[in-house]
Amino acid sequence: MKIFANELDAYLGQTIEFQGFVEKVRDLPYVLFLILRDGTGKLQVTIEKKEENQKLVDIMSGVSVESTLKVTGVLQSNPAVKMGGKELIPTDILVTSLSCNELPFDYTKKDNSNRETRLDYRFLDLRRSDNHLLFQAETILEHALRTYCIEHHFMEIHSPKISGAAAESGAELFSLDYFGEKAYLSQSPQFYKQMAMAAGFDKVFEIGPAFRAENSHTSYHATEINMADIEISWIHDFHDVMDFEEAWLKYAIGEVYRTCGEEMEKTFHIPPTDLEKPFARISFRDAKKLLQEKYHYVGEKETDLERKEEELLCKYAKKEFGTDFIFVTEYPFEARPFYHMLNDQGDTCSYDLLFRGIEITTGAQREHRIDLLKKQVLEKNITLESLDFYLEFFKYGVPPHGGFAIGINRLLMLLFGIDNIREATFIYRGPTRLHP
Amino acid sequence: MKIFANELDAYLGQTIEFQGFVEKVRDLPYVLFLILRDGTGKLQVTIEKKEENQKLVDIMSGVSVESTLKVTGVLQSNPAVKMGGKELIPTDILVTSLSCNELPFDYTKKDNSNRETRLDYRFLDLRRSDNHLLFQAETILEHALRTYCIEHHFMEIHSPKISGAAAESGAELFSLDYFGEKAYLSQSPQFYKQMAMAAGFDKVFEIGPAFRAENSHTSYHATEINMADIEISWIHDFHDVMDFEEAWLKYAIGEVYRTCGEEMEKTFHIPPTDLEKPFARISFRDAKKLLQEKYHYVGEKETDLERKEEELLCKYAKKEFGTDFIFVTEYPFEARPFYHMLNDQGDTCSYDLLFRGIEITTGAQREHRIDLLKKQVLEKNITLESLDFYLEFFKYGVPPHGGFAIGINRLLMLLFGIDNIREATFIYRGPTRLHP
Repeated sequence: MKIFANELDAYLGQTIEFQGFVEKVRDLPYVLFLILRDGTGKLQVTIEKKEENQKLVDIMSGVSVESTLKVTGVLQSNPAVKMGGKELIPTDILVTSLSCNELPFDYTKKDNSNRETRLDYRFLDLRRSDNHLLFQAETILEHALRTYCIEHHFMEIHSPKISGAAAESGAELFSLDYFGEKAYLSQSPQFYKQMAMAAGFDKVFEIGPAFRAENSHTSYHATEINMADIEISWIHDFHDVMDFEEAWLKYAIGEVYRTCGEEMEKTFHIPPTDLEKPFARISFRDAKKLLQEKYHYVGEKETDLERKEEELLCKYAKKEFGTDFIFVTEYPFEARPFYHMLNDQGDTCSYDLLFRGIEITTGAQREHRIDLLKKQVLEKNITLESLDFYLEFFKYGVPPHGGFAIGINRLLMLLFGIDNIREATFIYRGPTRLHP
Repeated sequence: MKIFANELDAYLGQTIEFQGFVEKVRDLPYVLFLILRDGTGKLQVTIEKKEENQKLVDIMSGVSVESTLKVTGVLQSNPAVKMGGKELIPTDILVTSLSCNELPFDYTKKDNSNRETRLDYRFLDLRRSDNHLLFQAETILEHALRTYCIEHHFMEIHSPKISGAAAESGAELFSLDYFGEKAYLSQSPQFYKQMAMAAGFDKVFEIGPAFRAENSHTSYHATEINMADIEISWIHDFHDVMDFEEAWLKYAIGEVYRTCGEEMEKTFHIPPTDLEKPFARISFRDAKKLLQEKYHYVGEKETDLERKEEELLCKYAKKEFGTDFIFVTEYPFEARPFYHMLNDQGDTCSYDLLFRGIEITTGAQREHRIDLLKKQVLEKNITLESLDFYLEFFKYGVPPHGGFAIGINRLLMLLFGIDNIREATFIYRGPTRLHP
């Protein structure tokens, strides 16, 4: 297998084969310097222009930047080389792929090219080291989220993304023809993770795609979302769900900071969020009161929070409790889907989690008692027939349960202080972007 | 949080709250026994029919099997109780959900009910302990597959499942209307994982759904598949890819055996596959020769293997090399997609991995040199225009690379000796099954 740039120290003095992209060529009168790059770092290749190297110099004369090479040579220590104090003295060079001379844009200068061009050529845009770092962080984040679940005895599920039932809430759905039947792309694993509870799977998680046919053009919406979903049986109330989410996020974000926090701060100039402090918690009604009394702000909607209110509540949490996270609890039923359980006041046993000004999670205890559930369906002006298959799950015993969902790339965007979800998604999908 | 059945030993002598499904009620003249079940085990609740327990007996009189309860009481040691030598002596019982008296079928007796009924009521079918075990094993398998990748410095990607381009091979695609544009459901992350190689991501993995609109009714096909995809840059040849896959599968299957192998053998009566032996390897041409000479079998297709031939090759690998796995390498180009690299003989640098009689993986080194790639596209009678966006990835340097894909649930099915993929998938999707 390939020797990577970050493993080179072990090979000093040896003849090795090194592969990489051509990052730079400096052709001087007596020497040709070449910088090769892989995903882990760089290596200088030094070709002295002497007779026995003529063949190598000839090969390099036809090679443009961004081509890929396989170079065989001796790895030598050389304290004068800035790049890790070593250089490769080649005896052979194989051009494994040739790049066109002209790139469609200079991907190394993010700010010099417009976003749409960069997204059109996402495969070049992603060559920048800040993007490598970002998706390494996503890898670590997700692995930590899953590992935490595994260690807490969750089962992983893969709910179907093609469904015969138009599920859930008002969000619009993509539809398709399924062997002559009308089918929909799943906007959430909600019903199926609840089905797992009815199947006696005590706790489940899923990380997978969710689809929203919303014609939304904000900086934090997408039509295809990478979602993490959690559902937990036998809870006492929705505070169990919040407690889980807080511990889970702290663990996973902590893992990101532990493995690449330093690089992240250096590259993205954003301080880490404080994970020692407890997440702030406030009820929806207290939040509305606070916004009016402390910030003299009255949102347009009485039963929900608008973006500005979420920003103010995050400001409040930061100032009063030193945390970037705040749970807002017990939203009015008007703002929530039919399946959220209601408390004695008629509000939902639910919460939103806000982080750095934006909602990242909706969670709740679910109504699992079929009579109350049916009543709530009807109150939302949904027909019972349209939810037949779902209501079936509640007929033969089902544990009290609750859960939540979180969009991974929105979280990543906020953690890295990136201003647009398009930049924090491997391949972004929106109403006007279906390519590449 | 809930105390689970497998944690009870730590609570002997204490007053606890225990939640579970009602598995059984035995109502005797002087005592009422109750078995509660959660995902980890069972607990007996013993109610002596004395005056102060009248309230509890009354509550239980209205409770049908499969209802869920929250029982408060003292956990006592009692060696006479078969179920772990302990029982809960209750002081309070709360019915958290009531089951209908009549279940649509007796889910505890798999063989007494037909498969379609069981799939219709999958949430009941999944309550059986063999199914819990199966999806616990899937959880462990996938976590191990990912962990192995993480430890080998792979990046995780999430390729888009909605795509503007009709990708790849002949497999039929589901199409949908995407804000007025025609879009397709992804049949494979193939093009996007190769895009990651062009982006300089050295090694990537993805586990996610893939969609095939094939009207196929076999016991091992589905229209929605949970696929694990791997792509690796800087390889020397496709043997690097096979070596990786062999080590990766051995690790992950080993983890499954380590954590639940004993239970698996007891419940599914299937011996573990031997992971010590190297996977067998044979070239396609040698395989054809062997089939003819040793088994006197000539398949219908000259350029591909049919099911019967795959079975015979597995039989051969088992007999000669003691392994259930065999790599068949270097298939003719006719049987492979345009992007497989060709060797000097004009065969593909590719392989299939067969396991217990069935193909579970196709892998290959990809052709990354754009001129050769275009030539191969045309040889397959595909227009270059239809692959425009994909061919773009190869213009600006791209490392030599290769990879493979494996359907998780087909692997799970074969590991557990299950005769149908419908049983080894959380929610199965096929041409005639879109529900639940």
